[in-house]
Amino acid sequence: MISVDTAITIITEKVEQLPPRTVPFESSLGFCLAKDVQSDIDMPPFNRSAMDGYAVIAEDLANAPVELTVIENIAAGSIPTKKITHGYASKIMTGAAVPEGADTVVKFEETEDLAADNRVKILKSVKKGTNISKKGEDMQVGQIVLNKGMPIRPQEIGILATVGRSRVEIFRAPTVGIISTGDELAAVDVKPSPGQIRNSNSYSLAAQARRMKADVEILGSVKDTKKEISDGIRKGLQKDILILSGGVSMGEYDLVGDVMKDFHTEIYFEKVALRPGKPVIFGKKDTTFIFALPGNPVASFVTFELFIYPTIRKMMGFTTLHRPTVKALLETEILVKRRRREYRPALLRLQNNHWSVSPVEWHGSADLLATTRANCLLVIREDAEKLAQGQFVDVIILD
Amino acid sequence: MISVDTAITIITEKVEQLPPRTVPFESSLGFCLAKDVQSDIDMPPFNRSAMDGYAVIAEDLANAPVELTVIENIAAGSIPTKKITHGYASKIMTGAAVPEGADTVVKFEETEDLAADNRVKILKSVKKGTNISKKGEDMQVGQIVLNKGMPIRPQEIGILATVGRSRVEIFRAPTVGIISTGDELAAVDVKPSPGQIRNSNSYSLAAQARRMKADVEILGSVKDTKKEISDGIRKGLQKDILILSGGVSMGEYDLVGDVMKDFHTEIYFEKVALRPGKPVIFGKKDTTFIFALPGNPVASFVTFELFIYPTIRKMMGFTTLHRPTVKALLETEILVKRRRREYRPALLRLQNNHWSVSPVEWHGSADLLATTRANCLLVIREDAEKLAQGQFVDVIILD
Repeated sequence: MISVDTAITIITEKVEQLPPRTVPFESSLGFCLAKDVQSDIDMPPFNRSAMDGYAVIAEDLANAPVELTVIENIAAGSIPTKKITHGYASKIMTGAAVPEGADTVVKFEETEDLAADNRVKILKSVKKGTNISKKGEDMQVGQIVLNKGMPIRPQEIGILATVGRSRVEIFRAPTVGIISTGDELAAVDVKPSPGQIRNSNSYSLAAQARRMKADVEILGSVKDTKKEISDGIRKGLQKDILILSGGVSMGEYDLVGDVMKDFHTEIYFEKVALRPGKPVIFGKKDTTFIFALPGNPVASFVTFELFIYPTIRKMMGFTTLHRPTVKALLETEILVKRRRREYRPALLRLQNNHWSVSPVEWHGSADLLATTRANCLLVIREDAEKLAQGQFVDVIILD
Repeated sequence: MISVDTAITIITEKVEQLPPRTVPFESSLGFCLAKDVQSDIDMPPFNRSAMDGYAVIAEDLANAPVELTVIENIAAGSIPTKKITHGYASKIMTGAAVPEGADTVVKFEETEDLAADNRVKILKSVKKGTNISKKGEDMQVGQIVLNKGMPIRPQEIGILATVGRSRVEIFRAPTVGIISTGDELAAVDVKPSPGQIRNSNSYSLAAQARRMKADVEILGSVKDTKKEISDGIRKGLQKDILILSGGVSMGEYDLVGDVMKDFHTEIYFEKVALRPGKPVIFGKKDTTFIFALPGNPVASFVTFELFIYPTIRKMMGFTTLHRPTVKALLETEILVKRRRREYRPALLRLQNNHWSVSPVEWHGSADLLATTRANCLLVIREDAEKLAQGQFVDVIILD
């Protein structure tokens, strides 16, 4: 039996980024860049007016108010054709190119239009350079604007558009197959017969993977027989990740580990000092990483977040592999029973800029309903004897 | 000109939840429930074994070690057929129904199998009720397990599966149309001619809306003419939300506000005391909410997060309408120029459980590249004169 930390280390050593894929830039949201992105333009592409107003020579305004003759009307997108010399100005729109000769833009609010005779009154003097964004001050031709490994958010989408990258190389998300095992499982849309429960793990695991952008297929549920489990695994070997739920305890119908070995799966670990979730198998067959998780719904949920979350993050090229952790003030005492790392569904609150946390009431690792009142996992370290009210504890923030 | 807070109040008063829609439960991830969900079953559906082991009568173990006769082998999913009486036990798997008569399960690790003569040795006495999850302790028939308005996360998906809700009523996400205006805009896949820049706002706005699960269509970019803007708005009126970018300043080509009025749009506000982003128009035409945002990329980005984010959240039925805000220690002094609320792209860090923040270097509201180094917006209040290093400031956390 290994520690949670060792298990996570093994996972992050064995798992690698998936090969890059080129996609339309609009589809790259939420993925990581697989290559640096260079700009093909200067931004601004020219000395650009940051205001609607008049392009002038700052010197001319020294004795403002002053009147100037307006020689041109420059819209955004059009090219100025007239050079500004002393005594002259051009009307200019936000985003338009500043005409040759002009060194300053005075905004409308500081002018008075004398349109009748093509003249403008500038009401006060303005510092040279005001309201002009210099060509190339934001980015220059050839500059690396986005780096390999950066997650693509809406602002990066905007930059890709700005530099004309209509297609972009990203690290793709893994394909994930999910199989639930157990003679007791009934389908969602039928009433369970006595002795049965509905299969919920396939769907909660699928949702956990889907919200990370993984390409998920539920491969069905199988009975506790070597034949059915083998058939399931065979289908799952076309995926990057295969998740099995159930069939990993000490019971005599817990055949998943045996079948994985029959397939000559390379097993990296089989038991983790963890509660809930001790029986967790992690291995690799050909190019497929296989996780066999416990069948209890909370154990399935927690082991996904601990072990499969960083697997998917690493495959997708993220450098931050884990969910954010904060220290929070514990609101109620917790008695610790076992010398295994424990993760408790809990409710984290930010009050007056301080984090506080309390475990939600639950009846153990089958009680998935308790997790609907939780927004985090409270971490109880292996060496903890008791957690006192008012002490700081580590908390993993869930979405 | 109204304050940001007033603008947000107006928006949250005018906007309402969209009508509910029934979807397959697997597609409900990320939406809010439009109705309470009741359980149709007890969970556990029977007194259930929480361990692989032996179902026994606790009294029989008083003088452990003790030997019992094994009368049945109960797999998960099968129904026990034999009643336990004194001196007898049944082998039982995790998740299986505890047989009549038994009140306790002893796990395998505390037993010794004497299989040859169908007997088991129980090594120590165990408290009555141990390792049994009582019928209905997690949920009961008729109990409301999920409430209207709850966001659906993977754990709620698991509960929907558990209670057999293969279809579920949610508040749908809005349809969003996006139009960029401006004679200077070039398409992403062409090299801009002199005076042009590529259209980036349509794509960053689309990404902002898509990551909230809105159903987005980019309706193209239009020239600064009343005809083209009118045609665009007409197309956009089929959407729940129409976003226009550009054409809202004081310039004479800024025709968006005029065209909105030509359409008899009910205008709720036209200017907000905000930087970047003062010219923001919010109105409603028929059933479509129209936002006209400034064309500068950072202003477009910020005004979406401030005004359209809560609009979409409210339409989708969320009760938390705004992004989370924390107070963070300011790492560098900020000089404040204007008496308008200001939002600066900034970098928030959590170090030793303390938030600290520093604004990213930027060249103003056209410099979208600066926002790629930011993960938050630093809030500078209207009444601030100077923000000193080491003081606490409000920060809006972005994804």
